[in-house]
Amino acid sequence: MYRTHNLGQLRIENAGEEVVLSGWVANVRDMNHFLFLVLRDREGITQVIIDKENSPEGLFEKVKALNNEDVVRVTGTVRERSSKNKDMPTGDIEVAADTVDILSRSLQLPFAINDNITNLSEDMRLKYRYLDLRRTKMLNNLKKRNTMLKAIRDYLTDKGFLDIDTPVLAKATPEGARDFIVPSRINKGDFYALPQSPQLFKQILMVAGVDKYYQLAKCFRDEDLRADRQPEFTQLDIEMSFVTQEDILCEMEKMAKKVFEKVTGKKADYDFPRMDYYEAMDRYGSDKPDTRFGLELIDITEEVRNSGFKAFAGAAESGGSIKAIVVPGNLEKFSRKYIGDLENYVKTYYKAKGLAHIRIDENNETVSPIAKFFSEAELSAITGKLELKAGSIALIIADTKDVTNNALGALRLKVGNELDFINEEQDNFLWVIDFPMFEWSEEEERYKSTHHPFTAIKEEDKEFLNKNLEKIRTLSYDMVLNGYEIGGGSIRIHDSELQDVIFEKLGLSKEEAEEKFGFFLNALRYGVPPHGGIAFGVDRWLMAMLKEDSIKEVIPFPKTNKGQDLMMEAPAAVDKKQLEEELLLKSLYVEEAKEDK
Amino acid sequence: MYRTHNLGQLRIENAGEEVVLSGWVANVRDMNHFLFLVLRDREGITQVIIDKENSPEGLFEKVKALNNEDVVRVTGTVRERSSKNKDMPTGDIEVAADTVDILSRSLQLPFAINDNITNLSEDMRLKYRYLDLRRTKMLNNLKKRNTMLKAIRDYLTDKGFLDIDTPVLAKATPEGARDFIVPSRINKGDFYALPQSPQLFKQILMVAGVDKYYQLAKCFRDEDLRADRQPEFTQLDIEMSFVTQEDILCEMEKMAKKVFEKVTGKKADYDFPRMDYYEAMDRYGSDKPDTRFGLELIDITEEVRNSGFKAFAGAAESGGSIKAIVVPGNLEKFSRKYIGDLENYVKTYYKAKGLAHIRIDENNETVSPIAKFFSEAELSAITGKLELKAGSIALIIADTKDVTNNALGALRLKVGNELDFINEEQDNFLWVIDFPMFEWSEEEERYKSTHHPFTAIKEEDKEFLNKNLEKIRTLSYDMVLNGYEIGGGSIRIHDSELQDVIFEKLGLSKEEAEEKFGFFLNALRYGVPPHGGIAFGVDRWLMAMLKEDSIKEVIPFPKTNKGQDLMMEAPAAVDKKQLEEELLLKSLYVEEAKEDK
Repeated sequence: MYRTHNLGQLRIENAGEEVVLSGWVANVRDMNHFLFLVLRDREGITQVIIDKENSPEGLFEKVKALNNEDVVRVTGTVRERSSKNKDMPTGDIEVAADTVDILSRSLQLPFAINDNITNLSEDMRLKYRYLDLRRTKMLNNLKKRNTMLKAIRDYLTDKGFLDIDTPVLAKATPEGARDFIVPSRINKGDFYALPQSPQLFKQILMVAGVDKYYQLAKCFRDEDLRADRQPEFTQLDIEMSFVTQEDILCEMEKMAKKVFEKVTGKKADYDFPRMDYYEAMDRYGSDKPDTRFGLELIDITEEVRNSGFKAFAGAAESGGSIKAIVVPGNLEKFSRKYIGDLENYVKTYYKAKGLAHIRIDENNETVSPIAKFFSEAELSAITGKLELKAGSIALIIADTKDVTNNALGALRLKVGNELDFINEEQDNFLWVIDFPMFEWSEEEERYKSTHHPFTAIKEEDKEFLNKNLEKIRTLSYDMVLNGYEIGGGSIRIHDSELQDVIFEKLGLSKEEAEEKFGFFLNALRYGVPPHGGIAFGVDRWLMAMLKEDSIKEVIPFPKTNKGQDLMMEAPAAVDKKQLEEELLLKSLYVEEAKEDK
Repeated sequence: MYRTHNLGQLRIENAGEEVVLSGWVANVRDMNHFLFLVLRDREGITQVIIDKENSPEGLFEKVKALNNEDVVRVTGTVRERSSKNKDMPTGDIEVAADTVDILSRSLQLPFAINDNITNLSEDMRLKYRYLDLRRTKMLNNLKKRNTMLKAIRDYLTDKGFLDIDTPVLAKATPEGARDFIVPSRINKGDFYALPQSPQLFKQILMVAGVDKYYQLAKCFRDEDLRADRQPEFTQLDIEMSFVTQEDILCEMEKMAKKVFEKVTGKKADYDFPRMDYYEAMDRYGSDKPDTRFGLELIDITEEVRNSGFKAFAGAAESGGSIKAIVVPGNLEKFSRKYIGDLENYVKTYYKAKGLAHIRIDENNETVSPIAKFFSEAELSAITGKLELKAGSIALIIADTKDVTNNALGALRLKVGNELDFINEEQDNFLWVIDFPMFEWSEEEERYKSTHHPFTAIKEEDKEFLNKNLEKIRTLSYDMVLNGYEIGGGSIRIHDSELQDVIFEKLGLSKEEAEEKFGFFLNALRYGVPPHGGIAFGVDRWLMAMLKEDSIKEVIPFPKTNKGQDLMMEAPAAVDKKQLEEELLLKSLYVEEAKEDK
C-alpha cells in the first residue's frame, strides 16, 4: 500500500494514528538532532520528522541523502507539532517516521519547483512541462480548468443538452481560415481536414431533431499564432432549436454566471449589459470592449471639420473621423518619449498616420504642438467637447473611420494597462450584439460574411438586401469578459430560399454554393427547425477568469508561437516509407513535378 | 415564442391550457370531419386535432396540404381525448389547434422516418445521417451515449480525477499502429501525427504530480477497418498514481457497474470474475471470452498423441494442440453443408488446416469420418474426455497451438451465435489478467511488447528476464463484456533502469530508444510515482451494452469501412494552392522525385 492519506489531509484529530504517506521530496532540512522531510503531492505538503537518536538505524543518513523531487513512501505516527504552522492546512501535525522507502530517484532539476519563475524562459517551461506543471500555480490552473469543464457540463446536462461528438477527420471548411489537412491512405490523393469548428455538424444535429446539443470540442486553425491563439484549441460548442435570440442570451448568461462562480469563487450578480456593435466601435474602438475603465473615445470630427489644420480637416473631408481619448491625472507620465512610443505603436500595428495630443497643464494652460493650427474658438470647441480639465491629456487620431477606431481602441487599452486604470479585481461581462452581415473585401473584391454565411439577419433589415448590404444587421452576439471575446454566435437561417439569396450576395453562384456546401444545403431542404447557437473559446475564457496574460498558462500542453510542442518535439520528420504509403511521395506528387517542367 | 411545452410533456392535468407547440409533422390523417396532425420532437409525439367545422378559415386545407417532416408551430387548447392511447405518454390528451404556422418545408424524403429499416442500405443511412438520426432508435442511442459520458464523468470527478486534455496535433507513436499525419505549414517538411492514444501524455501527467487523471479523448489509427473499428474513436483514458493493480481493478469495476446501471437500467451485482490470459486462451480460445455460454474448448492432445491418425498425431508431435468444442442437442442443424461452411470459415479466416467432427447419434452410435483411424480404446478415450453424449457433435481442430485456439475460439462464437446458445438478456463482465510481456515477431525477427513497452512485469517473473522472455507476465488487465474487450491497461514501469532493460530485450539500442522515446525517458529521471491506468473504447463498450452489432450504431457520424464520411463527402481533393503552401507539392517532394530518377 502506498498511502493511507494524501499530503493535504492530516489534522490534529489524526494524532496517534499510524499512517503511510507517499510523495515528492520538497526539501530536507538538517536540524542537527533531527531532520525535517517535507513531502509534496497534488493535495498539499506534510512535514515528516526523523529523530537522530530514536529512529531505526540508517534512517537518518538515508533521508539526509535524499534529493529534492525523489519520490518516497513513509510510514510513521502522526503527532502534534510543538511549533504549529497556521498557514499550512497540515501545520498542526508532523509525522514521526518509522520507515522511508525510495520509490524513485530524481536527477538534479533544470529549475526549482516553485512559483517564482522570473528567470525561467517560456521555452524551458514548455520543454519540461512535466516539471512546470508541478508548480502550485500550474497545478491549480489544471484544477480550475477541470472545475470549469465540470461546471459547464453540469449546467448544460441539467438543461437537457446532449453531449454529442462530431468528427475530427472532417472536410475542408469553405469560407473559413486555413485548414490543417490529413492525407488519406485508403482514398489515395484525397485529404481529410481537421475542423475549424463543428459549425455545419451542429446545424445538422438540429436538422436531425437533437434540439439541444453541446460539445467540448478540439478545433484547429492553421493560422499565424499569438498570445491568445493556438493551432488547436478547445471550443464549447452549443446549438438549440425552436429558440429566439433572447432565449439563447438568457440561457448562456445563466451558464456563464454559474461557471464564473465555480471557477473564481466570486459572483456576477448583474444582468450582462448589451451593447450594439456600432456603439461598441464608437465608444471603445473595439467590438470586445473592456468596460472596466473609462478613457472612452470621443468624436471631435465636427469640431475640427472646418479648421485650418489640414491633417484633421482632410480626414473629415474624405469621410474619415477624428477621435480622442482623454487621460486624466497622469501628466507626468506623458513625457515626449512616452508619447513618441505611443505614436510608434499606433503607426506600426494599426497603420495610423500619426498621433496628436493636447495637454492642459496644472495651471490650466493648453499646451499642444497643434494648438497653433486652430483659432481660439476652435480650440475651445475641441477642449469643450473633450471636457479637458487641468492635468489631463487628449490623444487624438485622425484617419479613416476604421483606422481611427482600431488604433485609438488599442491605444486606450495600452494606456489603460500601463497607467493602471484597470481594477484587476473587477470582472465585466457584456454582450455585444447586432453585428453587420456583410463586409467588403478589398482583396477579393466581393462582400464576405462578417460572421458566417448561415447567420440570420434582422427582420427589419431585410429591406436592405436589394439596397445597401452594409446596413444589414444580423441576429448575432458575442459574450465579452474584461475585453476578451469569450464566445460568439447567432441565430441561423432555416429557410433555404433566404440562404440562396445570401450566397448570391456573397458572389457565390448556385453551382459554387452547391459545390462548397452541397450536403448542408441539401439537409436544409428536409424540414429545419428555427435554431441558433454559440461557441465559447474555453482556453481564452479561462485565461480571462484567472487573469492570466497568455492562454499557454491554462492549456495543459500548449504549443509555441511557431506551433511546436517543445516537450515531445513535434512536428517532426516522418519516415520516408510512411510518406510513400500515404502516396505523398509517389504518383500524385511525382506527376505534379513532371507538370512543373 | 416557439413552444410552451415539448411534445412528450402534456398530460391530462394540462387540459384547458392554451399551449404553443413546435415540431416535425409525423403524419396527417384525414378523418373527413377532422384532421389528426401528429407532431414529433426529441421528447415524443403529441396529437393535434383540426375540426373542419369549428376551426378558423383555411386552417383545415392548410394542414391537409402539409408534407411529412415539414416543421410547424401550433397554438391551441389542450383537451381530454375521447379515445385515449395508453401506449403514448401524451395519449390522454389532444390539442385543438387555433393556428398552424409552417416554419419550414420538407421535400419528399429518400426514406421514411421509422425504425423499420430492413430495406435501407447502410450507405443511404450514412449519406442522410440527419434523417437517420431522426429515428427513435438512433436518437435513443445518442441519448444513451450522453448518459454514458455523464455517468463516467460524474463517477471520476467524485473520486478526484482531473479531466485534462492532451494534444491532438502530436507526434508519431513509435511501436504502434500506423499514424495519421498532418503536414505543418510553419515548420516546412515536418509533420504532426494524430494520437493513437494519450499513453505518453498520461504518464507524463503522473510525473507532473496530477495523481488522478481522466480524459474522454478522440484517438486515431490509420488501420484497415471493420465492424467494431473506426479510424477515429473515443477513448476513456485513465491514469492513477501511488496505486497497485488491485486498487485500479476495484475502482474501475465500481465505475463500470455504475455506468452499466445508468445506461441499461440493469444491475451488475457481482464481483467481476478474474481469469488469467492463459486460462482464457485454453478454455475459450480468446483473450476476450464471451462467458455467457459454454461450448468450452477441450484439449484432447494427449488422447490422440499416439494414435494412428496422422493429422492429429503429427500436430501433437510438432508441439501443436488438438482441441474440440462439443455442441449438444443440435444434431439436425449439422448437415454436411453446415459442417462444410464451418470448415471453410476456420480455413479462410483462421488458417486452420481443417475441421474434423465426431457425432453421437440418438442411438448412441459414434458417427465420424475419422473414426476409422482410431482404435476402439482411443475413440473411447476421446469421447470420454469430451463427455460426448447422445445427440452431441464434437468439432475438432488440430494445428499449432495458436491456430487451434484462435480458430476454435472463433468457431465457438459462430456456433454459439448461430445456434442461439447466447442469452442476449444476460451481461457478463470479467477481467482477463496476466498477459505476457513479450511475443516473438516472425516478421521483424525480434520480440515485441504484447501491450506496450512501458508495462510493468510481475515481481516473481523478473527472474525470467535473462532466461525465457515468453514466460514473463505483466501487471496488466483487460475488462471484457460479453466477448468484447471494452478496456485494457496496466501498471507502468516507474524505474528508468528497468525500462532500459526492457528496451534492450525489445532489440532497441540505447540510441534507438532515445530517438524514439527521448523526452519520455528523460521525464522518467525526475521522480516518478508508481502509477498505472486503463483505457476504455467508449464506442465499443456502448455497443456491447446496447447489444448493437456495429459501432456505427452508437457513433453520431461514423465513417464507412473505407474511411469515408458519405454525408460530407470526406476525404476529398484539396485545393492545389493549399498543397503548395503546405509544401506538399513543391521543394520537398519535387526533390524526392528528382532522386527517384
